[in-house]
Amino acid sequence: MTPIFHATILTLYPEMFPGPLGHSLAGRALREERWACDAVQLRDFATDRHRSVDDTPAGGGAGMVLRADVMAAAVDAVADEGRPVLAMTPRGRPLNQERVRNLAAGPGVTILCGRFEGFDERLFEARDIEQVSIGDYVLSGGEMGALVLLDACVRLLPGVMGAASSGDEESFESGLLEYPQYTRPAMWEGRTIPEVLRSGDHAKIAAWRHARACDDTRSRRPDLWERHEGARVGRPLARGDD
Amino acid sequence: MTPIFHATILTLYPEMFPGPLGHSLAGRALREERWACDAVQLRDFATDRHRSVDDTPAGGGAGMVLRADVMAAAVDAVADEGRPVLAMTPRGRPLNQERVRNLAAGPGVTILCGRFEGFDERLFEARDIEQVSIGDYVLSGGEMGALVLLDACVRLLPGVMGAASSGDEESFESGLLEYPQYTRPAMWEGRTIPEVLRSGDHAKIAAWRHARACDDTRSRRPDLWERHEGARVGRPLARGDD
Repeated sequence: MTPIFHATILTLYPEMFPGPLGHSLAGRALREERWACDAVQLRDFATDRHRSVDDTPAGGGAGMVLRADVMAAAVDAVADEGRPVLAMTPRGRPLNQERVRNLAAGPGVTILCGRFEGFDERLFEARDIEQVSIGDYVLSGGEMGALVLLDACVRLLPGVMGAASSGDEESFESGLLEYPQYTRPAMWEGRTIPEVLRSGDHAKIAAWRHARACDDTRSRRPDLWERHEGARVGRPLARGDD
Repeated sequence: MTPIFHATILTLYPEMFPGPLGHSLAGRALREERWACDAVQLRDFATDRHRSVDDTPAGGGAGMVLRADVMAAAVDAVADEGRPVLAMTPRGRPLNQERVRNLAAGPGVTILCGRFEGFDERLFEARDIEQVSIGDYVLSGGEMGALVLLDACVRLLPGVMGAASSGDEESFESGLLEYPQYTRPAMWEGRTIPEVLRSGDHAKIAAWRHARACDDTRSRRPDLWERHEGARVGRPLARGDD
């Protein structure tokens, strides 16, 4: 099988890949060649004999900054028409399921992993690189973000999840959190499964699940709920033409 | 050295740990015994001869649901006074740097990794478990989220980052994105480093960086900016007593 999704990771720690993506769903898909993963050492694009990729921040301050010239050389060397280049950084746009679905439908990604105090900003002025954040916390480097992004994409590739799992009713796919689930035993520590789920009435079950998904989204994630309600009533969110 | 931060991971894939946390900063800290990591197989707490941990969803639907009785037995077996139990699930509260800092200051964590269609909801009614989400996307399991959460915590442990990196001026620590960084070469592809950073005037540099952090937060993350402005003017956000 020719892999339909090709990931190239530019990193100071190529030994971290495929790492956890070599196990479970993603690992089986990798062995089945449904996707491919190359990790490339950023130091290979340094030009001095110390293989330096970073230098001290202009204007002072702690830490080191990744050089624009070395990063651009690495990106240029692996660039591939059609595959977007992403840089994992807390300054990036928050990743969401819509972007994941979109990336998974494409030919793959090149991912540049930040470290230290981040990238020289001129890199983003000079190259077409999408800055992506996986959440509002700070990691030791972009590698963990790359693993998360790839795991999210790979599970959506054709043939990876199979019939065993659903992709349609998951959290975020409808703009709502997923409804709560229950399974056997029917009675556990004095707690029963909600009666409706044992009724066999599919329409009632679907209505109950939708109501619970709405309740939980409203109470746990007012931010998601607001967006969901805006979309539902057709209120334009991005355009201002109402 | 006695580890001051102890992570226990309850998972169907113990072979994923420490995985990427065995490299770089977290790996060195693990070898120096600044933290400890046990991965425990959830199937060890099953009670049938097939070692089942899951069953079909009550009310029907695709996929499998993790049984409350098996999960509770696992949590009870490793529970440790003082260490919070977290479950990684997209239905959880979004992880942020404040919660990371808080967890890193404690004795460690027990992390329950979801798979399939998630946990039987009764688990959360019967046990004190904090549901945590690392972002608004769906992963193949909670393992990736556990790795992210641990990476974020471990880098904050005493002695892990050392003097080489700063923890104070990072994105989110002040409620703002970090300001853009620059380093050598001074001229690259016709692009210069902003003049102020080469002025040597520390007060002017600090003011410029703060202004850029504000600009970038406002334009890239209006949600963070709104929260930051609310906090700055002392407007109560959680309480309604104004």
